[in-house]
Amino acid sequence: MSYAFADRMSGLKASAIREILKFTADPSVISFAAGNPAPEAFPTEAIEKITDKILKENPIAALQYSVSEGYTPLRNKVKEDLKKRHNIGRDTDELVITSGAQQAIELSCKVLCNPGDTIICENPSFIGSLNSFRSYDVHLVGVEVESDGISITGLEAALQENPNTKLVYLIPNFQNPTGITMTLEKRKACYELCKKYGVMIIEDNPYGELRFSGIDIPTIKSFDEDGIVIYAGSFSKVLSPGLRVGYVCAPSEIIQKIVVCKQVSDVHTNILAQMICYNFMEQCDFEEHLKGLKTIYRNKCNLMLDCLQQNINPKITFTKPEGGLFIWCTLPEGVNMTDFCKRAVLNKVAVVPGNAFLPDEAEKTQSFRLNFSTPTDEQIIKGIEILGELTHDII
Amino acid sequence: MSYAFADRMSGLKASAIREILKFTADPSVISFAAGNPAPEAFPTEAIEKITDKILKENPIAALQYSVSEGYTPLRNKVKEDLKKRHNIGRDTDELVITSGAQQAIELSCKVLCNPGDTIICENPSFIGSLNSFRSYDVHLVGVEVESDGISITGLEAALQENPNTKLVYLIPNFQNPTGITMTLEKRKACYELCKKYGVMIIEDNPYGELRFSGIDIPTIKSFDEDGIVIYAGSFSKVLSPGLRVGYVCAPSEIIQKIVVCKQVSDVHTNILAQMICYNFMEQCDFEEHLKGLKTIYRNKCNLMLDCLQQNINPKITFTKPEGGLFIWCTLPEGVNMTDFCKRAVLNKVAVVPGNAFLPDEAEKTQSFRLNFSTPTDEQIIKGIEILGELTHDII
Repeated sequence: MSYAFADRMSGLKASAIREILKFTADPSVISFAAGNPAPEAFPTEAIEKITDKILKENPIAALQYSVSEGYTPLRNKVKEDLKKRHNIGRDTDELVITSGAQQAIELSCKVLCNPGDTIICENPSFIGSLNSFRSYDVHLVGVEVESDGISITGLEAALQENPNTKLVYLIPNFQNPTGITMTLEKRKACYELCKKYGVMIIEDNPYGELRFSGIDIPTIKSFDEDGIVIYAGSFSKVLSPGLRVGYVCAPSEIIQKIVVCKQVSDVHTNILAQMICYNFMEQCDFEEHLKGLKTIYRNKCNLMLDCLQQNINPKITFTKPEGGLFIWCTLPEGVNMTDFCKRAVLNKVAVVPGNAFLPDEAEKTQSFRLNFSTPTDEQIIKGIEILGELTHDII
Repeated sequence: MSYAFADRMSGLKASAIREILKFTADPSVISFAAGNPAPEAFPTEAIEKITDKILKENPIAALQYSVSEGYTPLRNKVKEDLKKRHNIGRDTDELVITSGAQQAIELSCKVLCNPGDTIICENPSFIGSLNSFRSYDVHLVGVEVESDGISITGLEAALQENPNTKLVYLIPNFQNPTGITMTLEKRKACYELCKKYGVMIIEDNPYGELRFSGIDIPTIKSFDEDGIVIYAGSFSKVLSPGLRVGYVCAPSEIIQKIVVCKQVSDVHTNILAQMICYNFMEQCDFEEHLKGLKTIYRNKCNLMLDCLQQNINPKITFTKPEGGLFIWCTLPEGVNMTDFCKRAVLNKVAVVPGNAFLPDEAEKTQSFRLNFSTPTDEQIIKGIEILGELTHDII
């Protein structure tokens, strides 16, 4: 039988990164392509104890059907935490638990966007979200990311040129893939522009708690007096991605629709996982745990930056992130980026070619993404050495 | 701000059942409205031991990111099991793990249906699936369920009248909400009709392993030589719904698209939960466990049927299921079904009004659904007594 797929499938491919990750199954390949937390970042013993206690004391609740909105104690705890730490959440907002922040982003798009509507995003941006938007046949418009965040003149021009814009998608902290952080001034300017044009913002903040240098900058959601910001957060980078627990805080009207869509998508998020997250927040010292994570990622990032400094052809530029998991490298004009990435894999170092992150994949880019959270220190030293040699060979 | 939602949201409401379930938070209400496994059906001790072992011996794998297709040992185990038990799966088929069968159904629709395409389903049918289809702006056409399954003449008429039909959605075993099982003849007839009209079938089989009387009937997927059947299964009714682990077996081309959509929806299914399911299948006696479940549900179903026989006004008819979780009761013409259900809740017994399950919710029905798996024996006796009195009062 020949299968006729829905039109929305035509623009959708498997994530280029996940395809690259398949190469990295070869243990001799050093992978800077993933975005996984460091193995040493998991509080495995605490999770084991917490889980055992839940399954001993409250097994039926942990295994039975639950409500689509999420486990109430976890919802309340996250609400409280977001309010206290980030001044997120007004009386008109609501918060529900999702199966990772990915689901929060997908459902926001499903709820708000018709085929052909425009979503403006940073260029480059997170491929998982871009593909999520593509799966609803949305028109993506990318706006350049400058060293201090999205170009504000570019954003206004895009808003003017695309009156059917429904959403602006932003990752203000340690952006994926660039590692760049948006300044407070730009966050405010984005908010004001979106307010002026009657467009909603999705603020995706998976790395917000992973700032290892510099000073925290208020989230866009923290100044949302007008109910225009959908805030997506996650336990993936601070506790465990395998548990698939995220959350979305947005105006109640939006949340009601998201809940209906979540119900028809997966009924509810794994309830055992939600109870693990809640009990971890409640019983463990989360601040102390985050401090530990920051130390791990600060060290890894600094090591990779030092290695780049020492090994890489000086014609290559790279970002210096204050948090998160990624560094963005840019080759000089005239060098073929795709060839470079292919040669890197042949030399047993995997990086992600930058075009994977472009809203318009046909566009050209000289950049590629490096991840420093997953490899060991030895792999960072060895891998950057190999990349370094390659950059001297090829440029 | 006033929010403009996507067109697809206009036909979509929260599940009527989940709304009713909120009433049943009152502990004095006896709920026949849910579809939860019996508390005594959970192998809590085994799950606790298995989970503890996983988190002790392999914590990073259980907490780290995983692949969208699902945990390979679980995929292989389920494939093997489906082949052995049900002759499901050809060389041209593939199987992936989903976040419950609900996700398998939603993604099948997302992958195959454009807005306005027709999905033919049993009338009545499972509300979760109907709402999932509605969330993609699909046109639903219901075909009458007779005492031996869907009307075949009705199905052919619907296929003829709706040349834009993309899918036929069927629950052949102990259908939700009617409890009716489709005969082998009708399964074959459905298959041949769909083949003739070039339409795919979603065979949803969450209750298949819960047959407590009569003899197993081959699944439609078992005679799928033409690659037209998408088979959805689940651990929800046989192990734990809270873990949200299901699976879908379908032609590889379809599965590839489903995986891409799953990737943008929730990246992958909770990996700890997948490992729990795998280890349960591998280490425990699954057949023996299923035997135990069947005994529980046989007893509960027989008890409810006996109570109905003794208490209910004989003008009311009800189905006698051979498995699953539900009984379907039909009031005589002239009695207002909605009023009856409202009076039942006022008398502290919750049932689900039948219109919740109609593809066309504006249609009239005299039926309501009873669940026998969740209430205790005492609740079944007391609750049916109350309903019985009501039926004598009102008819």
